Amino acid sequence: MTSHDNAIRLVGFDGDDTLWRSEDYFHAAQGDFERILQPYVDLLDARTLERLYAVEMRNLALFGYGVKSMTLSMVEAAVEITEARISAADVHRIVALGKELLQHPVELLPGIREAVEVIAAEHEIVLITKGDLFHQENKVKQSGLADLFHRIEIVSEKDASTYARVLSEFDLPPSRFAMIGNSLRSDIAPVLELGGWGVYMPYHVTWAHETEAQVADDAPRLRRVTTPSELPAAVKQLAMLGA
Amino acid sequence: MTSHDNAIRLVGFDGDDTLWRSEDYFHAAQGDFERILQPYVDLLDARTLERLYAVEMRNLALFGYGVKSMTLSMVEAAVEITEARISAADVHRIVALGKELLQHPVELLPGIREAVEVIAAEHEIVLITKGDLFHQENKVKQSGLADLFHRIEIVSEKDASTYARVLSEFDLPPSRFAMIGNSLRSDIAPVLELGGWGVYMPYHVTWAHETEAQVADDAPRLRRVTTPSELPAAVKQLAMLGA
Repeated sequence: MTSHDNAIRLVGFDGDDTLWRSEDYFHAAQGDFERILQPYVDLLDARTLERLYAVEMRNLALFGYGVKSMTLSMVEAAVEITEARISAADVHRIVALGKELLQHPVELLPGIREAVEVIAAEHEIVLITKGDLFHQENKVKQSGLADLFHRIEIVSEKDASTYARVLSEFDLPPSRFAMIGNSLRSDIAPVLELGGWGVYMPYHVTWAHETEAQVADDAPRLRRVTTPSELPAAVKQLAMLGA
Repeated sequence: MTSHDNAIRLVGFDGDDTLWRSEDYFHAAQGDFERILQPYVDLLDARTLERLYAVEMRNLALFGYGVKSMTLSMVEAAVEITEARISAADVHRIVALGKELLQHPVELLPGIREAVEVIAAEHEIVLITKGDLFHQENKVKQSGLADLFHRIEIVSEKDASTYARVLSEFDLPPSRFAMIGNSLRSDIAPVLELGGWGVYMPYHVTWAHETEAQVADDAPRLRRVTTPSELPAAVKQLAMLGA
């Protein structure tokens, strides 16, 4: 194998909380959900969000990710948590929370456009994001970043087999691919597992589900950054290791 | 242009109600929805399904297609139609309708596997289906047909620009593409518009939304069949016209 065969050619970006804000909106919606249920439950033993999360996890294999899935789980959880006492008007408010989530404007993280542009000048780049197809497509369109990406992949799960499929469509071994994202579980661990590279950029708030992953802090094919402005240098560093 | 440049190389198949039954299940769920609301409404002036359809159309630009979208619209419509009198238990039953729809087994249309195999022996084939990404992926897996397809495209809308994008990824002019499906609106009209070919195979029940299209019955690049067993001959006929 020549050095060229190992050089990073393709760089993947996650969407939610890597290119644009997302979890903040989910978090706010969950706060609203808690407030809607407040009149029905004993606050000292409410565990409302804990119970919502349990319903979401129970439904994950059936619903998949995304706002519509969460909204349906919220409706179901609300009936359970209130022991079927929730009013139709409050059910309507919960559906409205979901509709608001689907409509919030796309707000890019500070500095991300510049970082994407710099990396795109050196590498092919691909956006790999999971969730509702329709909602993610709308966010990509609104982001104004779509034209920078060679390809946009909206997937239902970000695991090793998904990344392997995407890489096979690019006809590229994992050793020539680096993924940038805020989720160790979805963006970093599966790519390292395949033999690729990762740049982990944690967001200030992370859905509990996305924190379930074990990646050693000193994994040799991993860099960790705190802001988008550090991304180009981190990719360059990995590319030098790979070359 | 030589004759070869015009020969049909790629054949697309729709999924729902072309490969497997789908609308029947939606139809049954709507009947259940009507029955859940029955105690709340004056039957003589219920127009329950008409009002549900209006809510679905209002939400289409926000939710997109699919079971989860329909279920959320059902919950919203139920609150509106009952003037916020629907009980939490009945809301729960509506969510359960959606969950059942997501879980029904995939039932292939009689003869479709053979038809797909015969066509796949002559052409590259692609599955192009719209709706919930997660649900459609599950149906494709369960169908047992996935390996026959060169590629599977789950899209949020089936319009001319979607087909143009898919064809550009295959690096193929529309004149070399034929699409098979049960919806004039989603499968046939946009492909004919681009200059491609169509085989229309109507299903015994069609969602109102999918019937909104104008395609002349004698359009020269269109064939109409009634059963899957007629598909290979129809494709062959079009291929001869194109060659």
